[in-house]
Amino acid sequence: MDNIAHLDLERRRRTAVPEVVFGEGKTAEQTLRLLAAARCGSPEFPVLATRCPDDVLHRANRAFPADPVVVDPIGRTVIVGALPPARGFVAVVTRGTSDLPVAHETIATLLALGAGHRLITDVGVAGLHRLFAYLDQLSEADCVIAIAGMEGTLPGVVTGLIRTPVVGVPTSVGYGVSACGHVAAAAMLASCAPGLSVVNIDNGFGAAAHAVKIVEKVHGGKVHSD
Amino acid sequence: MDNIAHLDLERRRRTAVPEVVFGEGKTAEQTLRLLAAARCGSPEFPVLATRCPDDVLHRANRAFPADPVVVDPIGRTVIVGALPPARGFVAVVTRGTSDLPVAHETIATLLALGAGHRLITDVGVAGLHRLFAYLDQLSEADCVIAIAGMEGTLPGVVTGLIRTPVVGVPTSVGYGVSACGHVAAAAMLASCAPGLSVVNIDNGFGAAAHAVKIVEKVHGGKVHSD
Amino acid sequence: MDNIAHLDLERRRRTAVPEVVFGEGKTAEQTLRLLAAARCGSPEFPVLATRCPDDVLHRANRAFPADPVVVDPIGRTVIVGALPPARGFVAVVTRGTSDLPVAHETIATLLALGAGHRLITDVGVAGLHRLFAYLDQLSEADCVIAIAGMEGTLPGVVTGLIRTPVVGVPTSVGYGVSACGHVAAAAMLASCAPGLSVVNIDNGFGAAAHAVKIVEKVHGGKVHSD
Amino acid sequence: MDNIAHLDLERRRRTAVPEVVFGEGKTAEQTLRLLAAARCGSPEFPVLATRCPDDVLHRANRAFPADPVVVDPIGRTVIVGALPPARGFVAVVTRGTSDLPVAHETIATLLALGAGHRLITDVGVAGLHRLFAYLDQLSEADCVIAIAGMEGTLPGVVTGLIRTPVVGVPTSVGYGVSACGHVAAAAMLASCAPGLSVVNIDNGFGAAAHAVKIVEKVHGGKVHSD
Amino acid sequence: MDNIAHLDLERRRRTAVPEVVFGEGKTAEQTLRLLAAARCGSPEFPVLATRCPDDVLHRANRAFPADPVVVDPIGRTVIVGALPPARGFVAVVTRGTSDLPVAHETIATLLALGAGHRLITDVGVAGLHRLFAYLDQLSEADCVIAIAGMEGTLPGVVTGLIRTPVVGVPTSVGYGVSACGHVAAAAMLASCAPGLSVVNIDNGFGAAAHAVKIVEKVHGGKVHSD
Amino acid sequence: MDNIAHLDLERRRRTAVPEVVFGEGKTAEQTLRLLAAARCGSPEFPVLATRCPDDVLHRANRAFPADPVVVDPIGRTVIVGALPPARGFVAVVTRGTSDLPVAHETIATLLALGAGHRLITDVGVAGLHRLFAYLDQLSEADCVIAIAGMEGTLPGVVTGLIRTPVVGVPTSVGYGVSACGHVAAAAMLASCAPGLSVVNIDNGFGAAAHAVKIVEKVHGGKVHSD
Amino acid sequence: MDNIAHLDLERRRRTAVPEVVFGEGKTAEQTLRLLAAARCGSPEFPVLATRCPDDVLHRANRAFPADPVVVDPIGRTVIVGALPPARGFVAVVTRGTSDLPVAHETIATLLALGAGHRLITDVGVAGLHRLFAYLDQLSEADCVIAIAGMEGTLPGVVTGLIRTPVVGVPTSVGYGVSACGHVAAAAMLASCAPGLSVVNIDNGFGAAAHAVKIVEKVHGGKVHSD
Amino acid sequence: MDNIAHLDLERRRRTAVPEVVFGEGKTAEQTLRLLAAARCGSPEFPVLATRCPDDVLHRANRAFPADPVVVDPIGRTVIVGALPPARGFVAVVTRGTSDLPVAHETIATLLALGAGHRLITDVGVAGLHRLFAYLDQLSEADCVIAIAGMEGTLPGVVTGLIRTPVVGVPTSVGYGVSACGHVAAAAMLASCAPGLSVVNIDNGFGAAAHAVKIVEKVHGGKVHSD
Repeated sequence: MDNIAHLDLERRRRTAVPEVVFGEGKTAEQTLRLLAAARCGSPEFPVLATRCPDDVLHRANRAFPADPVVVDPIGRTVIVGALPPARGFVAVVTRGTSDLPVAHETIATLLALGAGHRLITDVGVAGLHRLFAYLDQLSEADCVIAIAGMEGTLPGVVTGLIRTPVVGVPTSVGYGVSACGHVAAAAMLASCAPGLSVVNIDNGFGAAAHAVKIVEKVHGGKVHSD
Repeated sequence: MDNIAHLDLERRRRTAVPEVVFGEGKTAEQTLRLLAAARCGSPEFPVLATRCPDDVLHRANRAFPADPVVVDPIGRTVIVGALPPARGFVAVVTRGTSDLPVAHETIATLLALGAGHRLITDVGVAGLHRLFAYLDQLSEADCVIAIAGMEGTLPGVVTGLIRTPVVGVPTSVGYGVSACGHVAAAAMLASCAPGLSVVNIDNGFGAAAHAVKIVEKVHGGKVHSD
Repeated sequence: MDNIAHLDLERRRRTAVPEVVFGEGKTAEQTLRLLAAARCGSPEFPVLATRCPDDVLHRANRAFPADPVVVDPIGRTVIVGALPPARGFVAVVTRGTSDLPVAHETIATLLALGAGHRLITDVGVAGLHRLFAYLDQLSEADCVIAIAGMEGTLPGVVTGLIRTPVVGVPTSVGYGVSACGHVAAAAMLASCAPGLSVVNIDNGFGAAAHAVKIVEKVHGGKVHSD
Repeated sequence: MDNIAHLDLERRRRTAVPEVVFGEGKTAEQTLRLLAAARCGSPEFPVLATRCPDDVLHRANRAFPADPVVVDPIGRTVIVGALPPARGFVAVVTRGTSDLPVAHETIATLLALGAGHRLITDVGVAGLHRLFAYLDQLSEADCVIAIAGMEGTLPGVVTGLIRTPVVGVPTSVGYGVSACGHVAAAAMLASCAPGLSVVNIDNGFGAAAHAVKIVEKVHGGKVHSD
Repeated sequence: MDNIAHLDLERRRRTAVPEVVFGEGKTAEQTLRLLAAARCGSPEFPVLATRCPDDVLHRANRAFPADPVVVDPIGRTVIVGALPPARGFVAVVTRGTSDLPVAHETIATLLALGAGHRLITDVGVAGLHRLFAYLDQLSEADCVIAIAGMEGTLPGVVTGLIRTPVVGVPTSVGYGVSACGHVAAAAMLASCAPGLSVVNIDNGFGAAAHAVKIVEKVHGGKVHSD
Repeated sequence: MDNIAHLDLERRRRTAVPEVVFGEGKTAEQTLRLLAAARCGSPEFPVLATRCPDDVLHRANRAFPADPVVVDPIGRTVIVGALPPARGFVAVVTRGTSDLPVAHETIATLLALGAGHRLITDVGVAGLHRLFAYLDQLSEADCVIAIAGMEGTLPGVVTGLIRTPVVGVPTSVGYGVSACGHVAAAAMLASCAPGLSVVNIDNGFGAAAHAVKIVEKVHGGKVHSD
Repeated sequence: MDNIAHLDLERRRRTAVPEVVFGEGKTAEQTLRLLAAARCGSPEFPVLATRCPDDVLHRANRAFPADPVVVDPIGRTVIVGALPPARGFVAVVTRGTSDLPVAHETIATLLALGAGHRLITDVGVAGLHRLFAYLDQLSEADCVIAIAGMEGTLPGVVTGLIRTPVVGVPTSVGYGVSACGHVAAAAMLASCAPGLSVVNIDNGFGAAAHAVKIVEKVHGGKVHSD
Repeated sequence: MDNIAHLDLERRRRTAVPEVVFGEGKTAEQTLRLLAAARCGSPEFPVLATRCPDDVLHRANRAFPADPVVVDPIGRTVIVGALPPARGFVAVVTRGTSDLPVAHETIATLLALGAGHRLITDVGVAGLHRLFAYLDQLSEADCVIAIAGMEGTLPGVVTGLIRTPVVGVPTSVGYGVSACGHVAAAAMLASCAPGLSVVNIDNGFGAAAHAVKIVEKVHGGKVHSD
């Protein structure tokens, strides 16, 4: 491992979020070796890899025969190690079917970091009545993560309806002027609904990290007993 | 007039929308002379100037002592000549107070071209319940013009709720990433609500022109008896 | 279907445009299952899928053995169910050969929603004389959809010649500075021809949706007897 | 007031953040009338105006002779009404002197909404040792708001050092490639420090709104006794 | 002069276009001193200043009492010295009234460099029939300079109609998405009319320089007897 | 052919440049059929296809067994028919090896349209001394076409050294900030060397079309005897 | 001073470049007080303010009656305190007259930090022969700072001619596509001349700081005796 | 070689950096032939190819059986010929694992040009404590090259801590708003740490060229004995 990266094993203690293996642009070999090294350095917590290519997803179970392994082919994540008990809960809300992979990455991160979650899908502005059915759940959550591609309207609408802090995640879903998610990101930043904050395009992991930090503040102590 | 512009007096007959004087970047003298020339060439219809600087607004009444003159200092428009009878109606919907000038330009154009209108203001997504109160009116309109700055959400939400054709007008209202209206324009184009079409930023005149062409098609003949 | 999307079967009644399956980024399996679910929920109308990958196009006929199926490999659309009778008509005008796929998507949408159409191709500004031959047809249409890539000139020229409302569709055809259609989109929004409204790049479906809403207003009632 | 805006007096109850008067682009007369209307509709809480032009700042005290008024000429804010008791606290951290106006807007919002705060200034990356002196305070805060123009580095560095949730505010301070704050905004979104979320450029008000919602969740109930 | 610029008096002989004083961002004093120095260094040809602020325009006549001086307040140009005889001719075509200042700068450059010209104004695509009236003149010209703001359509349309080489000049006229002329410039570069070449936004001087070089090639020798 | 395009066989007579088949995004079948149709409609001149995919290049000779065919795999062009005699000459100058494909497209167009040419390669600003060796040739040319990717310096330097009109062609060669050629295009438009005009990125065909129109003006009549 | 900034008086020892007062966006009062505070904290070295508004330039001499003060109204800089002896030398090269203010800011920084300099002006690519006259001086310099607006060609050309390290400074001089200096900055980054490095637009101070660090490395020790 | 490029064999003597073969977009055949030609023209120095595709890397050893060959598959470089002795040293610092390929290109260039180096990896701002451990080495270097993708923070932080000149290399590592490295490049240019200069995205070769020129100035003569 030494020659390709220096794992920062103190990061979880310092920032509440451990170092996570970013699988994009790495070989399966590199990602699996980094997961193994992180697992050694942090035996009491699970370790997480995001944006894993297919061969990492296929080889993960065999690579850690002694550990519980959760592979999510939609969110392209791998968790190695027993999940910690979940505190609080984060509501994860999506606009449409094509935003689901980002929601899955978000949820895997919440699972690995010990925060509870509820998933509410397909409540984009073309069917606002469906969103209204969930307002109570959204109000009770410690944090809401609202995920939307195309024109990125949903997070602003949610923020205008509830007291809970909302994090918007623009996705790269769309075509033409919305290709790559830049319009969704800008529209969320420009939203006139006060209190919406935003993370990078497709960054479900980052939104979950922000939410976990809120959960930890709300529930009076650290999420994990470290 | 001859040395600064050639008025296209046939344009109304050809396209349903007459040549209109665009006051931005012209001297008051130039705009008033162009209005006078257009008035001469088209005595049976009113003539319109948009984006008029203050001195045009102040001098317009005295410049046409024999004509009815309507000056709108909010929309910065001047209409010279009697208004034609209004056919049909166009619903003009705005997000917030700061979008009102564009709505006024829209309405002045509808007045000058003989289309009816109803103005519904301040129904942005931070107060969606207010929008729901107007759904019947929006459904009955021949066309809806939805005007919004900042993140430009309103037109897409409206389009997802009614059968009437909707034209979105992004406005230059906003700051930071939304400055100048480009984000609002892109978000409207990217909206997942099918059937929303869009005009240039702050172009209330253009949206009204599109709406007037629809009114004319709906009401079985030309709006004005020419 | 339940676990990948919640179909909004009321959307046609509410907005005149039903939920349509967007095939891009979905597996053939997913698209065909969504089509089947939509078909069940709306037996009296045809259902439409756009931006279908090759395997959807190849498998569509076998997937619906009991239904009439229209597959268009140029526009990449599939219609399942008998076409409704066509009301009114929409003129679909294109700049060049390479804009044809967007025109085909437009026409498939018009067919599925019960609006008539006429297609006029290859009348870009390098051969304006050809456009002039069609002015009568364009004037009689309920709406004109003008489709152009590269520098996007055609819709503005058409708007300056007729009384009919025009919707411009920029396409992603081009190279260099025009790559992806952003220049065409901006040029249409900036056009000095009043009354031109614009939809997203390559969004033939959206332009048809706007046109169908106009057709419905013009022809005194809903297009389909629902 | 009625003819320029419809105040949404229920917004505080619904979203924890009341309607606030945005002074930019309004006359002093309009802003003061909107403040008075909001004050009438919400006698038990103070009302806030942001981005006030000079004449609003000068006239605010005389306009509300019976109320306590706090005018901040650096942050360009006016608060009318007694400040509520402060719960919890939010750390407000700035890069340099020129970012102070945004910090002042942030603090005025926290004051008006009843959240405590501590201001830590001038700890940009050219003097990181100064930041290290405040890590304990930052760790104890319910939320950190990190404000930075130019290249926008500070919020990411802070996020990598503490467990508290961090909101980054890019500012429009800078010149050349960083003019207007777009680079700072993008750099914050792209930061590899997980858990940083971002608001619009210069949007101190929005960051404070997000922070107040976290404070409310942490301190077990609503910030104000409503 | 020595301490603010080194005039390149050989440039006319080397490139057919002499050094010209660019008045923008200079004091009147500097521009007039540079004109005087250029006049001394090149007594047999006139010297030209472009983009002159008001005080240069007002003081130019008095500054050169012994020379013929042509001041154009619309194009903001000053020519000092007798005009050379004109060879050939360049057709200068404009879209609308607001593009006239760029046309005037173009013509002043042609005058100073000894090329003939004809000005054809206000033939934008909203009135194409007017353009058709001038096709013979355009065909006879040595070069056509087509000037257009907004969406920049005119030069491409002209190029598709004649055999003469065409140079397009985008102007900064417009608002919303077309503000500053970038859309016009891109649309001209992307035009599908082959043979159109383009210069910088508002660069009437540059277009004239290209045209003069063509005139010189066509008319068998240098334009001026040097 | 009829169902995919309407060839404009009058275009050569009208504009000096015939309709050319743009092979990008077409099947080999389509391109070859369009070439055949153009060949039928214009037997006295050769016909040209640009941006041809590999299978067009491979099949072109067999497709026109009775005609002389010139296939250029570097420039990706096909010419069918005997080349016309060349008039005048155009100097084609390139920055580096990687710009050669655009130079080849330029030359194929000059060949097909009957203009002479000389190719001068690899004279980018890292070796300016090599450029100086060719100044006489450049001065004698009717037009210079200067082709450069990366930062696009060469055309401006050439323009500052000679009297001949210069057309700059930015290429998409480069990486990082220069990727796609937009920086080269902008740098050419912004060049302070007066008289440089510019075409779209990689548009060797367009530059050649402009040059041919100049050659025709210079050599007193049409290039081809039509 | 305490309430508006915390001066980092150790910065010179740590980084070779002291904290400098950036006058833009500050009142004259603030800038002069910051200069005085810095002067107190660093009596053995001069202190520098850049981008000073007019009133700072006018009041600087009276504000420091006991100190030598150098005011440069072109570069908008103020130096308070005796200049240190100059080591080595940096060649400062400019494209044109309008780039001089940035050159002056560069030179004031070199003076204040104790590096020698030579200024070579107006050697842009339209007069390359003038540049060649200075190659020996450029080769002897410890570093070359090449300053250019418009299309930003000069620094790349210089880098291709000498062995000395070159820093390019894009300036905001230009209009149309080059407005604000972004094209010049990108063209310098994209230059194919290896070894050119670049600073922010108009950042003469930053280029001088880089050059001073090189001078210090070359001349065997720190520039100033601290 | 003659027909695809003209090698500039004098470039090393003139600029301290020889002509290097840029392998991107060339066939293996072309790259190897160019390397061979350069090797012939410069027998006393090694020759370098960068951005080599796989087949060049695989074939390089066999292609030069008589020469020492260094192939680096991570940096994609090939060096042919004995390495010169190294003078001085350049510190190469990287943010994370994914920036390593650019560091390898940098180091290969330093090796081929005879400058020493030390590589310090994975010291991004999420683990600043690790950076502090290397400050002495960074201070002793002749130049520091700091390489970072994502938000590009590292080079500015390094510049604020040491007296050595720093060159920043943005990399194309990242996703969402940071895709392609433009945000990292802009953030480095905008950094408030004075003295940081920047090269093109992923341009490790260019940064090394700048550093070698500094090493040569520092070590009193040319790096190589030519």
